[in-house]
Amino acid sequence: MTERFSGTVLRDLDGPDAKRPTMGEIGLNQFAPYLMNRIMARWNANLADEIKAQDMTTAKMRALAILAITPSVTINELSVFAVTEQSTMSRTLDSLEEQGYIRRQPRADDMRVRDVTITEAGRAAFEKIWPTMYDSLLKMFHGIEEEDYKAFIDVLHRILHNIRKHDI
Amino acid sequence: MTERFSGTVLRDLDGPDAKRPTMGEIGLNQFAPYLMNRIMARWNANLADEIKAQDMTTAKMRALAILAITPSVTINELSVFAVTEQSTMSRTLDSLEEQGYIRRQPRADDMRVRDVTITEAGRAAFEKIWPTMYDSLLKMFHGIEEEDYKAFIDVLHRILHNIRKHDI
Repeated sequence: MTERFSGTVLRDLDGPDAKRPTMGEIGLNQFAPYLMNRIMARWNANLADEIKAQDMTTAKMRALAILAITPSVTINELSVFAVTEQSTMSRTLDSLEEQGYIRRQPRADDMRVRDVTITEAGRAAFEKIWPTMYDSLLKMFHGIEEEDYKAFIDVLHRILHNIRKHDI
Repeated sequence: MTERFSGTVLRDLDGPDAKRPTMGEIGLNQFAPYLMNRIMARWNANLADEIKAQDMTTAKMRALAILAITPSVTINELSVFAVTEQSTMSRTLDSLEEQGYIRRQPRADDMRVRDVTITEAGRAAFEKIWPTMYDSLLKMFHGIEEEDYKAFIDVLHRILHNIRKHDI
């Protein structure tokens, strides 16, 4: 799993010796998206299991996390940030509104847009699951130094900038 | 998006001053799983779009990628590696077998297990989509140095080790 590939993975295909490596040469274990997909599938499944005991779903947790640190967002923004289909997010917000965790109100200068905000009860509900989220993060990065974590986050920001479609 | 958090994200909760930071303190942009989920959703959607033109699906591409570098695997292993539900993988293999890209045969010493192997036609099919996969990787890591990529991969291996459930 941790064997090292000594060659160059990221090659300049515009260079004079431009040649793609084969996948066999690199190996899937040096192909970042493969590792990231495996990691996130496991992370999401583990966390969903843990928050289930607190009667919470992944979509609700993500919506509350975003709303807890944003004054107000639209459903569209929420679904992008939460990586959740708009239709699922819409149902999630219905349920969160019933629970008294969020409020939706038409924007004063554009009645077609509805802004979503978190309530005090919603904030309290998020604070109850945050320790589970945070402790999962600690487990995920067990044995990794803070400095390496920061460098890792920097690369993630650069990737997100490279591939994102929405400008948010 | 790229604002830096100067405090410590990964805290030792067993230490004398053990205290979790709040999510508001850290911010979602310093919470790695949030960034990774957003990145992988975009990567998977972009790549699915691009390989569609080549009449290929994500599940097929992943199965072929794994089989191209593994002598033979079981359906169970394939579904873990490919991050695909067993039922979906099973249907995917039916289709790949019809296309003549893979073969399934009962294992000599345990007839209940069926080993999956790739055919020459399957290998050729994978070689046709590999440039799309590789060029997407280059786009994803545009502007990131090889050295930083290797360090990033190392962290991914350590995370996978920390959180994986299956010992493969």
